Amino acid sequence: MNRSVFQNSVGIKLPIIQAPMAGIQGGAMAAAVANAGGLGSIPCAMLSPDGIVKEIEAFKSAIVNPHAPLNLNFFCHQTPNPSEAEQRAWKDLLAPYFNEFCIDPASIAEGPGRSPFDDISLAIVQAHRPAVVSFHFGLPDPYFVKAIQSNGALVLSSATTVNEGLWLQERGVDAIIAQGLEAGGHRGIFLDADSKVSLALDLTTQVSSFALVPQMVRATRLPVIAAGGIADALGVKAMLDLGACVAQVGTAYMLCDEATTSQLHRRALASPEAQHTALTNLFTGRPARGIVNRIMRELGPINSTVPRFPLATSAIAPLRSAAEKHGSGDFSALWSGQNTSGCKAIGAEQLTKELAALVILR
Amino acid sequence: MNRSVFQNSVGIKLPIIQAPMAGIQGGAMAAAVANAGGLGSIPCAMLSPDGIVKEIEAFKSAIVNPHAPLNLNFFCHQTPNPSEAEQRAWKDLLAPYFNEFCIDPASIAEGPGRSPFDDISLAIVQAHRPAVVSFHFGLPDPYFVKAIQSNGALVLSSATTVNEGLWLQERGVDAIIAQGLEAGGHRGIFLDADSKVSLALDLTTQVSSFALVPQMVRATRLPVIAAGGIADALGVKAMLDLGACVAQVGTAYMLCDEATTSQLHRRALASPEAQHTALTNLFTGRPARGIVNRIMRELGPINSTVPRFPLATSAIAPLRSAAEKHGSGDFSALWSGQNTSGCKAIGAEQLTKELAALVILR
Repeated sequence: MNRSVFQNSVGIKLPIIQAPMAGIQGGAMAAAVANAGGLGSIPCAMLSPDGIVKEIEAFKSAIVNPHAPLNLNFFCHQTPNPSEAEQRAWKDLLAPYFNEFCIDPASIAEGPGRSPFDDISLAIVQAHRPAVVSFHFGLPDPYFVKAIQSNGALVLSSATTVNEGLWLQERGVDAIIAQGLEAGGHRGIFLDADSKVSLALDLTTQVSSFALVPQMVRATRLPVIAAGGIADALGVKAMLDLGACVAQVGTAYMLCDEATTSQLHRRALASPEAQHTALTNLFTGRPARGIVNRIMRELGPINSTVPRFPLATSAIAPLRSAAEKHGSGDFSALWSGQNTSGCKAIGAEQLTKELAALVILR
Repeated sequence: MNRSVFQNSVGIKLPIIQAPMAGIQGGAMAAAVANAGGLGSIPCAMLSPDGIVKEIEAFKSAIVNPHAPLNLNFFCHQTPNPSEAEQRAWKDLLAPYFNEFCIDPASIAEGPGRSPFDDISLAIVQAHRPAVVSFHFGLPDPYFVKAIQSNGALVLSSATTVNEGLWLQERGVDAIIAQGLEAGGHRGIFLDADSKVSLALDLTTQVSSFALVPQMVRATRLPVIAAGGIADALGVKAMLDLGACVAQVGTAYMLCDEATTSQLHRRALASPEAQHTALTNLFTGRPARGIVNRIMRELGPINSTVPRFPLATSAIAPLRSAAEKHGSGDFSALWSGQNTSGCKAIGAEQLTKELAALVILR
């Protein structure tokens, strides 16, 4: 699709989507991006329904143009039934660390940690009418996709392979986010990703944005949004030259004024450590890219004992808290893409303008 | 460095280097690329000294301009002392396959399989005066580097991380090949790559060309040659826009008329199987990217029992031959990058011109 047609359908002046980053940002950053003319995103996966509405209100109160578009992002995994054996094996693996920090494993509250899109999410979408709803890990039930589109929103979802892109196209999405393996945070991988035994081999299906974007453009008839490793204006221009309609940028925003990134995480992103990231399933149960730290080194970034997503989160949380109290990120999910060279401690409005500097449509 | 200055120093009209691909091409392809105005390469690692000279002569007899530059590419690993225990463990792992094909493991001739740069290589360089000598796996002894440069050749080497690029710069290379993880065949990785135990984690240091090239350009003061995932004219242009002086392209040439790629390998490259490649150490002992096949699935693409490079090659060779006799690539190293969309069964001269179509200097 022609880039300007797609930008118009979203209602953005600049071909930039600020990637939703759960735990890192909310409505304030989305509004700053919107004020520059890009598409800001609110990540909803770690928020309660009230929390989502609060962030939407923060967005609305901070935008200059009251009609500025917004993207609400949801996860759409199936929440698995907790298995006692799985949790026990996971806690056994973590036992030396619990011991080190004097944590009683019996005291750990179980909880899913991440919520998928559901009827309440749909009600929020219907009440607040975002211009865009984007998904990670495939799509929710077709009924939901139809209801969102009937409500006037475009539906986007991430594809990490051409096969996933074709699957999404068949199911009626309005655009495909081609997520290259450089991207920080969770891989959107959803096909052939169930078998834990071969998780390490499954991850070899993941290709870079530079390889994925042109192949996705060729294989599908939908607008393609490039994601992964896009750090600056040159990167945005390169991806648009390769046929993408819009660039989705995450990592570069993580040091921005509006980001709620922790000080510890900010320091890691700005340090040489950020040169070494890996896909790891240790923090949630699904592969996600973060800066290599102690637990990733000691248990291996991909470990087959980790429970299914998102059931891994509860047992590792107290370790993270305990270590962070001592200023250590040894157990923290230090999400980061493979290219931190574009991270800037400035406002997100300014960063958005800089990212789009070489690709403004006249 | 300015792109035209670097092109002039190499003596090429087009900013294209045909990547050296051992076992896939020789002087005929290098000459076709030279005739288009690019830099052709002869991969020397699997050739005897006589074999190298034969390919140089094939190059010379096929070039139109007698002063067309040539790149001779060498490996520069340390050949390890064979360990009987290591070979036994490897043959034990392969035993079920030897059994399946009625191969007597005792009949397998041991041999290093790949030769590093040495005094004889230097004598060939001094006698034939190629414009460029490129290395994979670091650099040979500083004496060799100096001798090659004194002889009038530029010295290039591959870096898979910014740290490797800085290491090469310190040791006086003339340009750095930034090898993104999309690239087919052997990773050039040479720092922190010794410890077999953590090989899987070491591989997480590998980043895409889209992430690596701009960071290498920023971190070093040398011309950067982009490699990995570059499939067509758009890809070449994108990499030059990101700051590379030249694009090195391999996979796209593998179906060319001058390639000696086997029929079986050609079929795999042209099939949907080529969508799924992985880094594997099974075929030589060092991680290299190839199309996922039976042995990679069954032993895992990275297996810690595999002997050190290049000692893995001899035991797996008879399995490859036996399977290929039945038309099967189950045990073949089907080298390929992550983007086969640019593979074309045309002459390499024509392909080189097409690759450079958007970046010709006036």
